[in-house]
This record gives sequence, C-alpha cells and structure tokens, in this order.
Amino acid sequence: MDCPFCPMLTGEKPVMKIYEDEHTLVFLAGHGFEDGHMMAIPKKHVENVLDCDGETFSRLMLTVKKVANHLVNNCGYEGVNIFTAGGSAAQQTVMHLHVHIIPRKTGDGINAWPPFRGATADTAQMHEKLKMPE
Amino acid sequence: MDCPFCPMLTGEKPVMKIYEDEHTLVFLAGHGFEDGHMMAIPKKHVENVLDCDGETFSRLMLTVKKVANHLVNNCGYEGVNIFTAGGSAAQQTVMHLHVHIIPRKTGDGINAWPPFRGATADTAQMHEKLKMPE
Repeated sequence: MDCPFCPMLTGEKPVMKIYEDEHTLVFLAGHGFEDGHMMAIPKKHVENVLDCDGETFSRLMLTVKKVANHLVNNCGYEGVNIFTAGGSAAQQTVMHLHVHIIPRKTGDGINAWPPFRGATADTAQMHEKLKMPE
Repeated sequence: MDCPFCPMLTGEKPVMKIYEDEHTLVFLAGHGFEDGHMMAIPKKHVENVLDCDGETFSRLMLTVKKVANHLVNNCGYEGVNIFTAGGSAAQQTVMHLHVHIIPRKTGDGINAWPPFRGATADTAQMHEKLKMPE
C-alpha cells in the first residue's frame, strides 16, 4: 500500500514539521485548505478512528490539543477547528489516520462549517436505532 | 451562565441519550444537521478543547471512538465524521465542549467537507511562524 504519510515518518519524504513526539507528528499541509492548515497523525499506521486502538487515538488527540493551545497561546490565533473523517463513506481520502487542525482568527473569512442539509428522519426512531445498550 | 448542555446532565432537561459513562455523555441532536447527528460532551463544564484539561479531553475522545465503532459495528453505518470547534473565532456557538459525530453511509448525499478556499500564504513563512520549539 502506498501510504503518502508513512514516508514522512521515515524521512524519505520532506515534511514541514510543527510538532513531533514518540508517537505522533503534526505537519503543515503543503497545499493547505486554509492558511496554517495542519494534520496530526499517529506514527503507527492505522486507517482511521475506527481501526485505531484507544491508546493511539488518545495520544493523537492529546497532541492535537497541545498544538491547538500552542496556536492560541503563542501564534496569535484565537481558536481552532479540529476534524477527522473515518472511512471512505465519510469522505476520507488518505488512509492513514489524520486529524485536521485549522487555526482561526475572528474575521478570517474561513467557513469551517460543512453544508449540512438538516435532519429529516424521525428523531425517536433514530434514537431507538442508535442508542447503545446500557 | 446559561449553559444549554449542563441541564441535560442533571436531568433538568430531557436528552436522547446514546451513551453515558461517569465522565461523558453522547446524545442525539434534537434538530440535527444530518440524520443521526450526535454530540459528545464531558460532564465537567469546560468551554472547549483549549481550556479543557488533557484527561477530560482524552476521555471524551475515547467515548467518541467508542460510539463511532458502535455506529459502524452495530447500526449499519460505514463511517463517521468527527469535528469540534474551539472558540467563537472558530464558529463555536455553544460554550460547553462538544464533539459532533455524523454517521455516514456510501451515497448518503452528505457533504461533511467545509467550503475551504485554499491556502494563499507563503508556506515556508507559515512553517516558521507556527512550528513548536523542539
């Protein structure tokens, strides 16, 4: 499998590193979706949140939080958007777990809200279908 | 402060519970953005990822993963979108940390990708500005 992210971890592919520790890497997306757009990935190759073990996911999200705080505390930003897609059905295109981080400022003109259409299904039925057993 | 989520935790406000444990709650959004749209929140009132302590954030994200796996393993979905906004500059409107979960199926017609415009800033300059000290 040709993973585009794994070669960044071995040094085969250059990377604009923002943060790195034993288990995770955060890098600036070369052709970002907005200025400062970053991706946080685990060093362990997993596809997404679904097949990832809890420890790896937890470490990755703590790295995301660390970078989010850095952006606001040290880089002049006021907020962050954080998102990840799990599965090609959820529009995931690169199959190495990655969490997008977009730094935000008031009035930056970014719209990080997807074009949702509004729910139409019966809410009580959805609740019955989706709730987890106690 | 009138937090709309805290009264769900005390039972003052009804909630379509999907999952609950000692530290977290996941509920179906009453007027969802798409069918099955849920929110995962910590029981501890924190504003967002920025002011949240690591332990609370980590527990919340493990709950998000648990529910994501449930949706795919038990409810007929194939993927999930997961996102959170930190700060009003990032379009956060309810100031109790919440992570959105949208269950997905191939061909569901949902577009969970925000209308990003593409980065325009010089990438090397952004890298210099945003990288964390080693």
